[in-house]
Amino acid sequence: MKLYKEVIEKIQLPCEESKERAKLRLDNLIKPLGSLGKLEEISIKIAGITGKVENSIGKKCVIIMAADNGISEERVSSVPKEVTVMQTLNFTKGGTGINVLAEFANSDIVIVDIGIDADVEHPKVLNKKIRRGTDNITKKPAMTKEEAIKALETGMEVTINQIENGYNLIGTGEMGIGNTSTSSAVAMTFLGCSADLAVGKGAGLTNEDHQRKKNLISRAIEVNSPDKEDPIDVVSKVGGFDIAGMAGCFLGAAYKRTPVVVDGVISAAAALIAYKINPLVRHYMIPSHMSAEPAYNLIMKELELTPSLNLGMRLGEGTGCPLMFSIIEAALSVTNNMATFEQVSIDDDFLIDIR
Amino acid sequence: MKLYKEVIEKIQLPCEESKERAKLRLDNLIKPLGSLGKLEEISIKIAGITGKVENSIGKKCVIIMAADNGISEERVSSVPKEVTVMQTLNFTKGGTGINVLAEFANSDIVIVDIGIDADVEHPKVLNKKIRRGTDNITKKPAMTKEEAIKALETGMEVTINQIENGYNLIGTGEMGIGNTSTSSAVAMTFLGCSADLAVGKGAGLTNEDHQRKKNLISRAIEVNSPDKEDPIDVVSKVGGFDIAGMAGCFLGAAYKRTPVVVDGVISAAAALIAYKINPLVRHYMIPSHMSAEPAYNLIMKELELTPSLNLGMRLGEGTGCPLMFSIIEAALSVTNNMATFEQVSIDDDFLIDIR
Repeated sequence: MKLYKEVIEKIQLPCEESKERAKLRLDNLIKPLGSLGKLEEISIKIAGITGKVENSIGKKCVIIMAADNGISEERVSSVPKEVTVMQTLNFTKGGTGINVLAEFANSDIVIVDIGIDADVEHPKVLNKKIRRGTDNITKKPAMTKEEAIKALETGMEVTINQIENGYNLIGTGEMGIGNTSTSSAVAMTFLGCSADLAVGKGAGLTNEDHQRKKNLISRAIEVNSPDKEDPIDVVSKVGGFDIAGMAGCFLGAAYKRTPVVVDGVISAAAALIAYKINPLVRHYMIPSHMSAEPAYNLIMKELELTPSLNLGMRLGEGTGCPLMFSIIEAALSVTNNMATFEQVSIDDDFLIDIR
Repeated sequence: MKLYKEVIEKIQLPCEESKERAKLRLDNLIKPLGSLGKLEEISIKIAGITGKVENSIGKKCVIIMAADNGISEERVSSVPKEVTVMQTLNFTKGGTGINVLAEFANSDIVIVDIGIDADVEHPKVLNKKIRRGTDNITKKPAMTKEEAIKALETGMEVTINQIENGYNLIGTGEMGIGNTSTSSAVAMTFLGCSADLAVGKGAGLTNEDHQRKKNLISRAIEVNSPDKEDPIDVVSKVGGFDIAGMAGCFLGAAYKRTPVVVDGVISAAAALIAYKINPLVRHYMIPSHMSAEPAYNLIMKELELTPSLNLGMRLGEGTGCPLMFSIIEAALSVTNNMATFEQVSIDDDFLIDIR
């Protein structure tokens, strides 16, 4: 609880003056005003986060929160829950989607067992297990409030530790069969929308299974009556260790004034939890790719964020983050390396016009 | 005319068998079927283009076609036409948007003077000038049919030359004040749509200027009556050297079985010309970012392509290409480096389920 309070209380607004200086610099570069769109917005946002106009990314990583979700016993996913531990171990070997894409972007990954329902003893997996999986939210709360705080603090701690070890760009990933269901439940609770609006068909669900999934998630909310004004209540009742851990990552990154990338719908649900805990965290988030899950767009609207990538991806694992890392680094290189009108000494008449 | 005929006649369909083998490989990787979305599609597309399942990008470049457009004397742009030559010379010095983004993606740029209305003598600028700027299309055809063929052949020649020198990924860029107008005219002619549907406000046009621009482009089509069944007629009457050169780049890349990236709306108009000359060229095109210009989406619909990036960019110069190069290389690394279910020896029961 001590770390939780410390982090929540110390998150600050980004530095407006640095953002203005970054915008001024961008406006002086040899291009029409604002013509690099989101690349400019990202660069300005990061200036506000770090307090510096010129930024460069040193070490970067995707933190993967792996946990089992009790709702998986309702067969809401097309794969059995054992895939959680199997795929987590695959992360340690390389060859998974996140391994390959992280390596491509020169990013590390951090694998965290925050609640896998199996004994995972592996030097490459951080053992932060809170418990072997959450309870089935269609029947009872996923976890206690104490466990929810502990999961959030785990995400905070892992993230702060990475940043203190020189990582200055963080991505959020997960592995947890059943976590699109908990994500939907979290989103529906906070946004007050129905399962019809928020729950997608996912990968390979039949119409019948889709309806069943929607019914189950609606029942989970009915059974638990989470209080949307109390984010810890929501997380503990209809969330999961994986999502709670990721929410902690967002909060920890904001606390350390470090940009943090949102992956797909599960990561977005975690971002929403973090935002409901402290709305300022939004300013530290950079979305990556548009998820096909309908809840994703609803959450992005609430967070006032728009993704840059439209790749039809639905793998999870944090796979959108390394792709976005490249776009972010490109955005920073614009601010750092483009020439100003003064430098190229464009004729003053044109200078006025082209701006 | 000889090169033009050779290229047009020799463009072939991609290799379906290689695409199927690439898809089979992707379906065997440890992820749900199709869950890497467009990354998988791109990798399959490139397999079809090269005839190999595993591909990697060696040297890559953005070819920038620079030319003046006679319609600029109607003040359709917020900047004077002298910016064409000034910015082209800036490309040689570094510090422009395309320089910085190309460098970030480890890409070269090739600067081609295909019709700048100034004497450009610079070792870093390929002198392929057809003429000092096109004529004003609101009054007469932009160029002769012979000049149109020559401009197309210039794009083909430069592209083929790059590919023969080891470049295996090509991007298309341009510098030419007034070329959003010619692009709109080309798109409206081929797609049979009105200026209201196709012409955007661009950067900093007032409502009045926007209406004036739409009227001018409509007049250009009226005055010249281009025959939409004859692409060379369209290019010569309402196109420009820059767009025609880019259309040649697409055709040259397809001829050499090499993937070629579409930038914004001007590049898309050039892609449309190439497609109308030989529809097979579409299979070699990879779009990058979604342009804010309305004609862009209309053209993509016709080409049955969808962009991966949504960055609100409107700089031109080919700046979307290097960003897309990174996504393409990430896509190829998925096919080349992810593990198969067999390799990780996932339990057979799960193997069936997860697929």
